[in-house]
Amino acid sequence: MATQADITAMRRAIALAARGLGSTSPNPVVGCVITDASGHQVGEGWHQRAGGPHAEIHALRAAGVLARGGTAYVTLEPCNHTGRTGPCAQALVEAGVARVVYAVGDPNPQATGGAATLRAAGVDVEEGLLTDEAEAGNLAWLTSVRTGRPFVRWKYAATLDGRVAAADGTSRWISSAESRADVHRLRAEADAVLVGGGTLRTDDPHLAVRGIEGATQPLRIALDTYAGLLPTARILDDAAPTLLVVAEDADTRHLPGVDLLRLPLHDGRIGVHELLTQLYARGIRSVLLEGGPTLAGAFLTAGAVDQVVGYLAPVLLGAGPNALADAGITTLTQALRLDITETTPIGPDLRITATPKGA
Amino acid sequence: MATQADITAMRRAIALAARGLGSTSPNPVVGCVITDASGHQVGEGWHQRAGGPHAEIHALRAAGVLARGGTAYVTLEPCNHTGRTGPCAQALVEAGVARVVYAVGDPNPQATGGAATLRAAGVDVEEGLLTDEAEAGNLAWLTSVRTGRPFVRWKYAATLDGRVAAADGTSRWISSAESRADVHRLRAEADAVLVGGGTLRTDDPHLAVRGIEGATQPLRIALDTYAGLLPTARILDDAAPTLLVVAEDADTRHLPGVDLLRLPLHDGRIGVHELLTQLYARGIRSVLLEGGPTLAGAFLTAGAVDQVVGYLAPVLLGAGPNALADAGITTLTQALRLDITETTPIGPDLRITATPKGA
Repeated sequence: MATQADITAMRRAIALAARGLGSTSPNPVVGCVITDASGHQVGEGWHQRAGGPHAEIHALRAAGVLARGGTAYVTLEPCNHTGRTGPCAQALVEAGVARVVYAVGDPNPQATGGAATLRAAGVDVEEGLLTDEAEAGNLAWLTSVRTGRPFVRWKYAATLDGRVAAADGTSRWISSAESRADVHRLRAEADAVLVGGGTLRTDDPHLAVRGIEGATQPLRIALDTYAGLLPTARILDDAAPTLLVVAEDADTRHLPGVDLLRLPLHDGRIGVHELLTQLYARGIRSVLLEGGPTLAGAFLTAGAVDQVVGYLAPVLLGAGPNALADAGITTLTQALRLDITETTPIGPDLRITATPKGA
Repeated sequence: MATQADITAMRRAIALAARGLGSTSPNPVVGCVITDASGHQVGEGWHQRAGGPHAEIHALRAAGVLARGGTAYVTLEPCNHTGRTGPCAQALVEAGVARVVYAVGDPNPQATGGAATLRAAGVDVEEGLLTDEAEAGNLAWLTSVRTGRPFVRWKYAATLDGRVAAADGTSRWISSAESRADVHRLRAEADAVLVGGGTLRTDDPHLAVRGIEGATQPLRIALDTYAGLLPTARILDDAAPTLLVVAEDADTRHLPGVDLLRLPLHDGRIGVHELLTQLYARGIRSVLLEGGPTLAGAFLTAGAVDQVVGYLAPVLLGAGPNALADAGITTLTQALRLDITETTPIGPDLRITATPKGA
């Protein structure tokens, strides 16, 4: 049975794990708390970036000899394999940890087996403490392991009547400063931020993270089928890396030095799953889809949206484009249905988080 | 200083008042709790319908002689005038009540002065306990006193992307059974329910209250400029009274026995404020505006919406009409801005209540 002390320690480990969001891909985020034999916390750590030490190693270093006879709380099953770093299960055994409590089993076939290794060494192993919270914290990574493509979060900002811009196209600012700051947090948590050609031409977006100290910049990805982008576009500055996705035969001679991904067209469009497969191969495990309505429609039609985050501003316009265009739905029975998982006031706005049913 | 017992009694009075919503117009809703000299509750009541006894009278009857030396908690300042019933201030004095606590002063010039009458008779009078809660409970009546027209609540049900129907017009059911039941509660609380010609032709709405025992049916009002309604329309059944609003010269010979309001047209449209003035003259103090997008736009443009209640269903369509059409807004700086006052989950949906800024 988990004690209140166990729950407190695991909750701390989950909070620590979240600090790694956006900088650990292709690895998961992981947090670890170590207590000594009498239950006092003596070490903590989190996985900070791919290639760096795992959470357990940071925590063990902090605990030193005090880990002996103590408990390690880890958000994910300790790994069993030697990659760029050694296996954590072995490190916990060597440190003399008597008990390991983890929230979520490792679904990665390369890394699984840590619990068995620990048990074989006589360590008391418990699984399943705060599993739901820990899974929510690792949603992007777990989804990417399960689907073999990056986790896709579609973000939009709209009025109460569903408009993303006024009739004349003006859209600065529909949502509040607080909501815009929150979007920068979402960008920082994502490996990549993606926009379509319409948004690229209309808004000349920058897409880099601003206002968050120490944030890892996401890869800025723009779909620009015929490479119409001007070399002066804001997305091409050096605030963050940029990847331009173009058609196989696009003429890109005016864009020297720009990182390009060339993909075949199908009916004049780049294939959603083909794009996601390519991004996955580049180590991208989470994508923040920022616009526009047509690109969102293509992703939803392809069943490639895992989470919807809508910033709803208390504004009415009565005219102007909608957040979503052309998802291939003509009658209500075909509607895409979701579950609302969270509703949070952000300044004067409302942030609604929802998950497509069956996703 | 208000004691916890005072707060408990007034909260009870506010809850009692709400039972009268929809059946007291043109009067306010009022609740009353009476405690004896030692603070025990000995009577309660609420204003049940216009022309019937006021809340204080119901409560005094229940309390009988136990009211002597006690306290009366009333959500609204006791009235001072003799209308269809006698003045409540006098009744409280005659019953020997020693103390009267009320939440909101009576803004009605015909009825005000109750507090002065009570004080002149030696009663201890206190104003302002739970004022905000009591005002919220009487929002429709207070708004109508202040504006000289009925309180207008615009209700819509839309998808996350702002659609009220799919591309082919299908709209049953975008929102959940729970949300639809909640709309019946809103109807029961309103004096009248209003729809425009588009909704009338497309949906053949019924608009009566179903599923709420003892509910007072609202007046069903349909704007039907050229009297195109068929005699078989569901809105014309006998489940509730119906008023058809038509142009002055509309030919209504195919609608014998239907209650008609003839209004002049301005640019082919019925004037919003002219309509509201006529409804006010008929004793209507609250209107639930149920559709459609064009009528909502006309009311918002006229500054005649006091509250917006949106049922947001976790559904995406990507095509179809929006909740709001043509509010005369072309650029973002003209946008109608609101404050969200409440967000409540209703089944799988989200109910968002908002108030136009400056309203």
